[in-house]
Amino acid sequence: MNVILKRSIFGKVMEHPRPELIPNPAVRRLSLYLRQLEAFQRKERRTISSKQLGESLGLTDAQVRKDLAYFGQFGHPGIGYRVEDLIAQVRKILGTDKTWNVLLVGAGNLGRALMAYKGFEKKGFRLAAVFDADPAKIGKKQGPFPIQPLSELAATIQSKNIRLGIIAVPADHAQDVADQLVGAGLRGILNFAPVSISVPSDVALTAVDLAVQLEQLSFQVNFTGTVTAM
Amino acid sequence: MNVILKRSIFGKVMEHPRPELIPNPAVRRLSLYLRQLEAFQRKERRTISSKQLGESLGLTDAQVRKDLAYFGQFGHPGIGYRVEDLIAQVRKILGTDKTWNVLLVGAGNLGRALMAYKGFEKKGFRLAAVFDADPAKIGKKQGPFPIQPLSELAATIQSKNIRLGIIAVPADHAQDVADQLVGAGLRGILNFAPVSISVPSDVALTAVDLAVQLEQLSFQVNFTGTVTAM
Repeated sequence: MNVILKRSIFGKVMEHPRPELIPNPAVRRLSLYLRQLEAFQRKERRTISSKQLGESLGLTDAQVRKDLAYFGQFGHPGIGYRVEDLIAQVRKILGTDKTWNVLLVGAGNLGRALMAYKGFEKKGFRLAAVFDADPAKIGKKQGPFPIQPLSELAATIQSKNIRLGIIAVPADHAQDVADQLVGAGLRGILNFAPVSISVPSDVALTAVDLAVQLEQLSFQVNFTGTVTAM
Repeated sequence: MNVILKRSIFGKVMEHPRPELIPNPAVRRLSLYLRQLEAFQRKERRTISSKQLGESLGLTDAQVRKDLAYFGQFGHPGIGYRVEDLIAQVRKILGTDKTWNVLLVGAGNLGRALMAYKGFEKKGFRLAAVFDADPAKIGKKQGPFPIQPLSELAATIQSKNIRLGIIAVPADHAQDVADQLVGAGLRGILNFAPVSISVPSDVALTAVDLAVQLEQLSFQVNFTGTVTAM
């Protein structure tokens, strides 16, 4: 059987698909719904229909309802969704209703940019420690933290209650750093190094390959431009 | 009719779906196939089957064949794909067989990191100009370029043959910058500002919201952790 019973975030027990059965695109769209709901909230909208939420993102109302139905029943007949409630519920599903302590490995240009990036803290991710393999950098202040050697990973993860790690090191060090993060007990890794890394199946991994983003963009510009009717 | 005739990259005329009918995930997977093919090439593999290519990415061979079939017929009976050929062909489809001149708006931390990022140049994206709205930054050297004022956008895009633009400015300036890029003739924008922007439908837009990536990661760690069989 492909469902398990789960106490929903309303407190009602509901049938719930196993997380691996929820399609990844539905989870990615949750983030989009959240952005859009936050935008509606800033405009002081109190309620919204699945049609309106979908339209703002170029999706059908059926898609919106289907995506949200993976996680519970959030709509109210004749009202639609209460914006404030749905924001709280989506944050709870995404886990961003609480603050996550995050560590960063790699204090180069990209690492420094990520540390200075305002968007993380706003979404509930608090940078709690910075590591680098370069002995010349150890002890130097990077933001509010002295840069630490990788040998202190495990102790710091425990003492600062860190759950997620960001890898911003050169490609040829990324797998080694990932292995060390996993060995030190982290269960979620965001990889910015321009290389594929592997982690055990019980570790969550997300990768941001900046060049891939440009590649996708060049495809859109390129391909549209060269297709010709003959 | 949903197909148009197109000269394929082999020079044969083939039926080809309109680009808007190619599913986005298939285009994203093209980038993954390319990464994987490049890895096989580094290991001096000459040929590869759709099964092997799929397995290395957790996809079925049917998915691989279906994705590639949107763009042409690349396999050889009894051989599979020739690694070097398929790399060249995928690059051609993605438009990264040629070098793209790219401009950057925003010379803050993120902008500087993007400029220092080695992955772009390797994939055929050459940073050709840097802009900032801050008068105090204008004229300062950023990498090989003096930072330019936004008033020089249109002239620089033309003189340096720039096709793509990267936005790395604070959220509240992003839409204004996007409008200026579009007005100056750019047809592809990569947005790093943590905000949704809109562009005309003939302009390609890709967004990298770094916080969304962490959100997706926290979902994976969080949700798997709290689902319980009852």
